[in-house]
Amino acid sequence: MTKKSNIAITIEALAQAVKANFEGDGSISISGAAPITKAQPGEITFIANEKYIKFLENTKASAIVLDKDTPCPKHITAIRHDNPYLTFARIIDILYTEEPQIPIGVDSASIVEKGAEISPSSHIGPLCHIKNNAQIGDNSKLISSVYIGNNVTIGNNCLIYPGVIILDDTKIGDNVIIHSSTVIGSDGFGYAESDKGLKKIKQIGWVEIDNDVEIGSNCSVDRGALGPTKIGRGTKIDNLVQIAHNVEIGNNCIIVSQVGISGSTKLGNGVILAGQVGVVGHLEIGDGARVGAKSGVSKSVLPDKTVFGSPARDIMKAKRIEASLVHLPKLLKRVRIIEKKIKD
Amino acid sequence: MTKKSNIAITIEALAQAVKANFEGDGSISISGAAPITKAQPGEITFIANEKYIKFLENTKASAIVLDKDTPCPKHITAIRHDNPYLTFARIIDILYTEEPQIPIGVDSASIVEKGAEISPSSHIGPLCHIKNNAQIGDNSKLISSVYIGNNVTIGNNCLIYPGVIILDDTKIGDNVIIHSSTVIGSDGFGYAESDKGLKKIKQIGWVEIDNDVEIGSNCSVDRGALGPTKIGRGTKIDNLVQIAHNVEIGNNCIIVSQVGISGSTKLGNGVILAGQVGVVGHLEIGDGARVGAKSGVSKSVLPDKTVFGSPARDIMKAKRIEASLVHLPKLLKRVRIIEKKIKD
Amino acid sequence: MTKKSNIAITIEALAQAVKANFEGDGSISISGAAPITKAQPGEITFIANEKYIKFLENTKASAIVLDKDTPCPKHITAIRHDNPYLTFARIIDILYTEEPQIPIGVDSASIVEKGAEISPSSHIGPLCHIKNNAQIGDNSKLISSVYIGNNVTIGNNCLIYPGVIILDDTKIGDNVIIHSSTVIGSDGFGYAESDKGLKKIKQIGWVEIDNDVEIGSNCSVDRGALGPTKIGRGTKIDNLVQIAHNVEIGNNCIIVSQVGISGSTKLGNGVILAGQVGVVGHLEIGDGARVGAKSGVSKSVLPDKTVFGSPARDIMKAKRIEASLVHLPKLLKRVRIIEKKIKD
Repeated sequence: MTKKSNIAITIEALAQAVKANFEGDGSISISGAAPITKAQPGEITFIANEKYIKFLENTKASAIVLDKDTPCPKHITAIRHDNPYLTFARIIDILYTEEPQIPIGVDSASIVEKGAEISPSSHIGPLCHIKNNAQIGDNSKLISSVYIGNNVTIGNNCLIYPGVIILDDTKIGDNVIIHSSTVIGSDGFGYAESDKGLKKIKQIGWVEIDNDVEIGSNCSVDRGALGPTKIGRGTKIDNLVQIAHNVEIGNNCIIVSQVGISGSTKLGNGVILAGQVGVVGHLEIGDGARVGAKSGVSKSVLPDKTVFGSPARDIMKAKRIEASLVHLPKLLKRVRIIEKKIKD
Repeated sequence: MTKKSNIAITIEALAQAVKANFEGDGSISISGAAPITKAQPGEITFIANEKYIKFLENTKASAIVLDKDTPCPKHITAIRHDNPYLTFARIIDILYTEEPQIPIGVDSASIVEKGAEISPSSHIGPLCHIKNNAQIGDNSKLISSVYIGNNVTIGNNCLIYPGVIILDDTKIGDNVIIHSSTVIGSDGFGYAESDKGLKKIKQIGWVEIDNDVEIGSNCSVDRGALGPTKIGRGTKIDNLVQIAHNVEIGNNCIIVSQVGISGSTKLGNGVILAGQVGVVGHLEIGDGARVGAKSGVSKSVLPDKTVFGSPARDIMKAKRIEASLVHLPKLLKRVRIIEKKIKD
Repeated sequence: MTKKSNIAITIEALAQAVKANFEGDGSISISGAAPITKAQPGEITFIANEKYIKFLENTKASAIVLDKDTPCPKHITAIRHDNPYLTFARIIDILYTEEPQIPIGVDSASIVEKGAEISPSSHIGPLCHIKNNAQIGDNSKLISSVYIGNNVTIGNNCLIYPGVIILDDTKIGDNVIIHSSTVIGSDGFGYAESDKGLKKIKQIGWVEIDNDVEIGSNCSVDRGALGPTKIGRGTKIDNLVQIAHNVEIGNNCIIVSQVGISGSTKLGNGVILAGQVGVVGHLEIGDGARVGAKSGVSKSVLPDKTVFGSPARDIMKAKRIEASLVHLPKLLKRVRIIEKKIKD
């Protein structure tokens, strides 16, 4: 089962819209997008990964987005582009427009404290609570049950899903998307030892989220202890991610689900942390560095380096260790045999 | 301290209700259930694990659920069943009935958009927001502050705890339980690289949850990119679990807390993933496969296989490696000694 | 950029308030606190870690909190204390008082069921739902959109952030802080196998949280199966932590982000679990034990022991294994060479 698009459009028109060429019958009307194995006549699909070329012959799709080189069966119309995945993403945007239309204005079942400034072009759904001196920019949408603390600023064209909590003093740029139940600006985890147990260090900092950031559901982004916790422009964060106080994340990073970044660690630009990675505090992860899934990063990582494992090491080293581990049980026996032989 | 049950009932009546036999005085009245070390006179306990047999002699419980073979002290009445844990579960259901009674109907402090169809036998608590064309079946309960998106369908006898967010187009079967702050249908994590940074792939899919599924608190279940993310009949999911887009989980699986399952991975039926397991994307985990706690699964797993470790290996292999690791530091020294000897 | 404090106060007055001595000009007015590299004139900073002594010479701060021995440049006024971090924490409390003032009473947009007892000195913000027989003590604050179940008791001076869900029968002491989207009292994960699939074990227990506990955002604390899940006095829990049913945590423990503690495990007092640690069920972790980040604890840990790794071992052993692992790939080759030599 696939999802019908909101509009039907010819392949020719689609190709033109995404600035790509096509081969085959451009007059066919497209009314849906689907994976190659599930697509039906009238639908478009794509190949961005060689593994899927084997399904090309038998797909029922009417059109397919391909790179410039992959041969295409005659019965399918090919839309050709150097970056087929990006092109397919653009086609989806055309086929599946937002629905239903969301009305502008503040729902009467929301609470807006005095001093809050809300752009008249924004949409504030029901059961939201917007506190004193908060600012919400043009065309931004708070779907439902969103909490916006004192002095929070949210830019233009933001999309805040139900159940998001944005606490005092958070600054959010334009085109930011935050998914449900994520908490921005909870207190950092800081205590000093005292005779009477652990004394809380009041967390007086805040969170800054730059333009074009997307943050998944059930994430925790803590406010800085004294200054900001920062998430740089264009960075994308998956679900259930922990960002501790004073962390600074650069631009265009990819932080996959269930990652935890400890306090005061800095990530450069274009860093990729795969799922369930943990990074200890006060480290520097250089521009373009990559960390493999489930790794535990205990030392700073140089730019463009790929590390893996727990503790994380250079990925080539880590893979060699991993490969040799299989031989360890027998190695113990072999050394025992050698020791015996030598003794004799 | 233990919890008093809502009713008092004789052991004889209890045994009859759960279709088990009893040995000893069946006329004793039972008004509570407790662990074997904490149970008091008038309470019932159980043994489902041999480790606890040692507490049998000194328990103060008046009755105990046992298997057919374990000897029972004379002063305690035994309820006998091949599956004592299941029998105890059924006894708890009898002793502790739901309280207080929840009224049917929609609370006036909830918002129901037009087009939503809500069974008159359901309970919609306050501060809920139910959007256009949503459908809620018979005897289902939304306790408080639940968000139900456009076109969501929820079957009969479901129980949705406070703070749950169910986003557009989700399909939920009958007898489903979802715990607080869980998010169903947030966007999958998909981007295409472009000259201007990461371009979001609009996630046009949905989530399908079959009958008898239970999902814990603070979980994230992402909608599919183009089609469904699926959770099969009878599957149980613990807290803080990540289910990425296009994942398909079979029937009667057990997914323990803080597990993460990456995009497009398929689990068969009866799969068990222990706590904090991570599974990379596009894998197949066969029927009845088991994955040990904290494992990182980077390859598909055959049916009925048990794997462990990070990266996950056959559990016997993994345990052998783990056992030999302890000897590695000395092994290095031993080899150095051998090398010296040989050199001489 | 740093945050201006709510008041300005002379160093002399500050030192007196925190019972510390000062060296230098005590008449300077302080109106902010900041990290040593970012502090500006008129601000106070601190050094609690030797790594930061190098920044002392060039800081622009007007005052600094130091231990008794670290030399201080003449142009900066030093506040001296044996525990500079604790002293700095107290100074922050003085400089940054709560703002804005929160009014007492129950917001008219909240729902309070009959039978709930709410102290008139407490603050119940909007969109809260407080159920039957709940009790809320003096000076406690529920900021917004908080759910309080039936028979919940909350002590004095508690601070409950927006979106927190506290389910039926939970008992919370005084001075407890709970951060947003955390769920207290969700069902434990317990099922018995039956012919018809997994049968839910009704979770009839509850959660007990003692005085002075702080729990981060997006945590899940499950109710006990039959009795309590307990969190001891003064314990601090970070974000995204899983506490399973029947867990008992002692006093003054530190549980860092994304830790998972499985069912019925007991932690003594003063235990530290670093980030992403997993602990299997039914274990005992002794007083003062420490577990390194990302460790998987599969056996009980003796008091005051430090363990590390997955599976967790004595930390010295674990470090030795880790250090030797790097040599493993070459060791394999070396043994092969030895075997050849011996064969000859």
